[in-house]
Amino acid sequence: MRVSPLVALLAASFLTSPALADEGMWTFDNFPAAKVKAEYGATIDKAWLDKVRAAAVRLSGGCSASVVGARGLVLTNNHCVAECAQDLSSKGNDLYTHGIVAARVEEERKCPGMQGEILEGIDDVTAQVRSAGSGLTGAALIEARTAAIGAIEQKGCAGSPTTLRCQVVDLYHGGQYKLYRYRKYDDVRLVFSPGVPTAFFGGDPDNFNFPRYALDAAFLRLYDGGKPAATPQHLRWNPEAPVADEAVFVAGNPGGTDRQLTVAQLERQRDRTLPLALVRLSELRGRLIQFSGESDEHRRLAQDLLFGIENSYKVYYGRLFALNDAGFMASKRGDEAALRARAGLSDDPWQQIADAQVKADTLNLDYSYIAGGPMESSLFDYARALVRAGAERAKPSGKRMSGYADSQLALLEKELLDPTPVSPEMERLVLAFWLSKAREYLGADGARTRVLLGKDSPETLAAALAGSRLGDPAYRKHLWDGGAAAISASDDPMIRFVRRIDPEARRLQSAWNEAVTGPTVAAGEQIAQARFKAYGDSLYPDATFTLRLSFGRIDGWNERGKTVPPFTYFGGLYDRATGQDPFKLDPRWIAAKDRLNPKTVFNISTTNDIIGGNSGSPLINAKGEVIGAVFDGNIHSLGGDYGYDAATNRAVSVSAAAVSEALRKVYGATALADELGA
Amino acid sequence: MRVSPLVALLAASFLTSPALADEGMWTFDNFPAAKVKAEYGATIDKAWLDKVRAAAVRLSGGCSASVVGARGLVLTNNHCVAECAQDLSSKGNDLYTHGIVAARVEEERKCPGMQGEILEGIDDVTAQVRSAGSGLTGAALIEARTAAIGAIEQKGCAGSPTTLRCQVVDLYHGGQYKLYRYRKYDDVRLVFSPGVPTAFFGGDPDNFNFPRYALDAAFLRLYDGGKPAATPQHLRWNPEAPVADEAVFVAGNPGGTDRQLTVAQLERQRDRTLPLALVRLSELRGRLIQFSGESDEHRRLAQDLLFGIENSYKVYYGRLFALNDAGFMASKRGDEAALRARAGLSDDPWQQIADAQVKADTLNLDYSYIAGGPMESSLFDYARALVRAGAERAKPSGKRMSGYADSQLALLEKELLDPTPVSPEMERLVLAFWLSKAREYLGADGARTRVLLGKDSPETLAAALAGSRLGDPAYRKHLWDGGAAAISASDDPMIRFVRRIDPEARRLQSAWNEAVTGPTVAAGEQIAQARFKAYGDSLYPDATFTLRLSFGRIDGWNERGKTVPPFTYFGGLYDRATGQDPFKLDPRWIAAKDRLNPKTVFNISTTNDIIGGNSGSPLINAKGEVIGAVFDGNIHSLGGDYGYDAATNRAVSVSAAAVSEALRKVYGATALADELGA
Repeated sequence: MRVSPLVALLAASFLTSPALADEGMWTFDNFPAAKVKAEYGATIDKAWLDKVRAAAVRLSGGCSASVVGARGLVLTNNHCVAECAQDLSSKGNDLYTHGIVAARVEEERKCPGMQGEILEGIDDVTAQVRSAGSGLTGAALIEARTAAIGAIEQKGCAGSPTTLRCQVVDLYHGGQYKLYRYRKYDDVRLVFSPGVPTAFFGGDPDNFNFPRYALDAAFLRLYDGGKPAATPQHLRWNPEAPVADEAVFVAGNPGGTDRQLTVAQLERQRDRTLPLALVRLSELRGRLIQFSGESDEHRRLAQDLLFGIENSYKVYYGRLFALNDAGFMASKRGDEAALRARAGLSDDPWQQIADAQVKADTLNLDYSYIAGGPMESSLFDYARALVRAGAERAKPSGKRMSGYADSQLALLEKELLDPTPVSPEMERLVLAFWLSKAREYLGADGARTRVLLGKDSPETLAAALAGSRLGDPAYRKHLWDGGAAAISASDDPMIRFVRRIDPEARRLQSAWNEAVTGPTVAAGEQIAQARFKAYGDSLYPDATFTLRLSFGRIDGWNERGKTVPPFTYFGGLYDRATGQDPFKLDPRWIAAKDRLNPKTVFNISTTNDIIGGNSGSPLINAKGEVIGAVFDGNIHSLGGDYGYDAATNRAVSVSAAAVSEALRKVYGATALADELGA
Repeated sequence: MRVSPLVALLAASFLTSPALADEGMWTFDNFPAAKVKAEYGATIDKAWLDKVRAAAVRLSGGCSASVVGARGLVLTNNHCVAECAQDLSSKGNDLYTHGIVAARVEEERKCPGMQGEILEGIDDVTAQVRSAGSGLTGAALIEARTAAIGAIEQKGCAGSPTTLRCQVVDLYHGGQYKLYRYRKYDDVRLVFSPGVPTAFFGGDPDNFNFPRYALDAAFLRLYDGGKPAATPQHLRWNPEAPVADEAVFVAGNPGGTDRQLTVAQLERQRDRTLPLALVRLSELRGRLIQFSGESDEHRRLAQDLLFGIENSYKVYYGRLFALNDAGFMASKRGDEAALRARAGLSDDPWQQIADAQVKADTLNLDYSYIAGGPMESSLFDYARALVRAGAERAKPSGKRMSGYADSQLALLEKELLDPTPVSPEMERLVLAFWLSKAREYLGADGARTRVLLGKDSPETLAAALAGSRLGDPAYRKHLWDGGAAAISASDDPMIRFVRRIDPEARRLQSAWNEAVTGPTVAAGEQIAQARFKAYGDSLYPDATFTLRLSFGRIDGWNERGKTVPPFTYFGGLYDRATGQDPFKLDPRWIAAKDRLNPKTVFNISTTNDIIGGNSGSPLINAKGEVIGAVFDGNIHSLGGDYGYDAATNRAVSVSAAAVSEALRKVYGATALADELGA
């Protein structure tokens, strides 16, 4: 990684003002079709939008995907199925590394916890949400909103609760609330994964870099009633070589952007949140790297988490350096001042948000360590969900804490009860890390450190908690079914631990809602109104892991005077291989070398405005055909959380051409290739 | 650690303007005696200053100390002898943890690489240094200065090169250059160490916190001709209980402060240097923690390095948060603008330094990874010193790179040839870390990554380099004595590696000198002149690991409305002990509990202005008696790199009273206690 370039993020056009160039993660009901027509000559009409929407899949774990075959076949990234492959692996059977090729439907195995969701309808519920909690502030406002949202969701899917998922979506930071109704598939199975050496060729060094040579593609299948789902609305798979400059579209679920945050919010990210996150990730990364070196089995156990941490590290690092760019912050300040002047509000919502930041600073360490809990402990996550579900399900839905309304229980139950392997060794590592950092940041004498540790040391407590039985799905089901009584009766160490700390965690959550979330929601709605008044519908909302469409073209960029072309080819993979990790070829690729066309387009750089969560999104041509899958951005895109720089921000996709050829010539996945029509 | 308080660093009085309250790390030739007389009634005359100076010891490894007995007996901190204790340890014999009590002089063992230095004379050489390189800029200026400094040092100690060390010292960022002449003791032996559980009771959680219960004291002995050195000028040891509010002085060698840096320099620290350093330290910390957990021997091997890293982490973290305080930076900007206006220079040295920061940013990653080398690899440090000494010693002294002039070779030779254990496992860890981070930050395809790695991966190269023979002092002596020819002939993997990368490291050093150091030195001298003109001798220079005297009083502080008293007592240690690391008592202290007076003053908070490097400094009363040893600051002192806040910055010392009582009643170190006159 060459990091310095990304600080050159241009202080050009950002989301406080109307979008320029190929900027924008547009909702399907406000897509700038006229602009696209003018710039690219592409006709994006309602039929086009409906067709693409009906084939765009959201994966509940945080990825995007698309239906590319009539029997539920779904394209996504390999890194979107990596956790599934890890969960289906065991000692000596490392599917994460070696991949999987299901030759027949019977060999397709269910991905634990995974749900596929296709957006079917959107209703505006802004008025209903806003009226809830009218006149309230702080935590009371949040509680009223939580109840209202749960009720709207429940009502919205009342007809078909087993096949639909309803979710109230926040757009424009409270500018709009919409009810998104998804057809859900809670049985998703793994069809094909090329394995990590090929999907993530170049590893962390090449991550967020381009030129790139990664087959980061995988296939899943949606099931319905134990059979492949009928998906006649699938997109056409086009394995032809893509052409430079052609118009391309990305339909997916960008996870989150911060382009509409206030300057005070950005400053807190820069000065507090990101530095703390980076050191936290770095130390855990170091522990995991050393752990991985201890044995092959440790390497296998840690690999998926380590990938995730290294990926997050790079993202946060890029964001910190973007915010450290004085010119960028000055432009943000200018935009904010202009909107503030134009709004002419008697209230000052910007100041209210700034005040909330000060309070957030005070509460943050307690809040993040106690209310937040450990990073990546399955046992803790299971225990907390079970303890809370036990308490909350005894109440009427409208009185429950966020996440436990009736409308939200189905997915929670699935995530809790699907079988996934839990490694006590990994648990011990992540728990000891969390507890030791909590002691460090909350103080050895802090009252809340005592709530966590009691008289234990971080290491002894972690070892005890790692002995929990919650790795056993049957035990989880016993506690889920048994509710509050079963939870009270449990002597499981993790259940007891969570029972002990949860009252404090809930108090901190309420305090946070009172001081931070409540005021921010209220002020955010005022700012959103001011922005609509000033800029009308020329705006797109910050990303919220909901379906968006971005447009652009196949294009490289100029890197310090040198042109970076938009394509790489199979031949380049072999040139880049060194025989050493992470530049070591899968033996199947070595064997297939002579059969492959070295001029096949492998990876593609495009100008689409994307961010994490877009992983697995289809790259679509103007005819609505899938020509690839987005899997990354270039290094400049890391500042994309805060703004889009047309000159250098690029999305990176793997081509359908490469996938088709690899399926046939490397993996012998003839049936799958035939099913794609490739 | 409760970190947030330190961001409350007051934007009050800083070093661009005259010092207020107890602020200041004063040189002995510009001590504000009149002010101290007025405020504390203490008479600090020339005799007092001469006496204290003659007993103040600088330890070459980065600590301070004081002579407290007539036969070379020296008081310092345990953490200043910890590396020595680690070097004298071996598998199954962990002196670092368990401490050492030499019952007789014959049991005192030499600390490898350690040199004690007592300042004997100061000459002003400002004119000589400034005239060197007159008319030159950039790297040429630095080269001319390097040559001139070497010559001044050589001449200054020409009469007694074996007993003296001469060093040209930079004060006020080029405002003054002084020749410091030290009596040196290159044979320093370990007399007493209480061991880490007692010296560092509370571990990282308590580090930089107060109330505190740590016996961070140790004794060394200076030797001369193989016998204890005669030191009739020692200070009197006073084990009486200290009294709140009494005037106290700290004579020691603060390592470095940044109070006179320009705003541009501070901003680069805030936005680049500190975030990068923190993530680097954090990941290495994580690797070491995991490594330590693998076995008792790994814990033993890693413990000293881990302590150093955790300590640095806290310091940098505190510094980052101090610089993120907008009010503080605004006050710095105001001070700078005032001085700039007052100076009325036709040149703009502040802008020149700002320009150099931009260039530093561009060069920094290459420079720090290639020219800087790995953190904490003994094998690399040995190899580079040997390779460079081989090349440089073949040239006349005035033509050599910095660090290799004749005046500098004696200490270098000692550090190279003294026997210290080298652990191949630890070497492998730190080298793999360095090489993998270099690849990450310089890019997998970077030309300089290729210079480092060739065709190896970080892990394979680290394993090969850790096989070096340079852990053997005899082999180092062979290469030192054999000079360039022996270096060329060596097939040692680390020597070959350094031979390969050193040309690039030297090019980067020159480029850095040309673009950063040269312009900064030239501009710094102009700013220093402007500051003298504006503020006269009311200034003290930024710390440069040279002898300083700070004044103050025994005092606690007010922490969010609560008074923190200035003393802790032995009784508190037992209250705080939990039986679990790092709050676990040494068995000797458990056994001694009933013999100890629970009301003995243990640790002391004082208002003295100190910083890292002051560790081990004597805490002196107005009569010039030693009443303790400074070993830490409170959490607020972490912003002390940039300024002193009289309300909350506190130094923390262990009392002579506690040391005396522990020597007799815990350790049975009767001879040592008698020697102290305790």
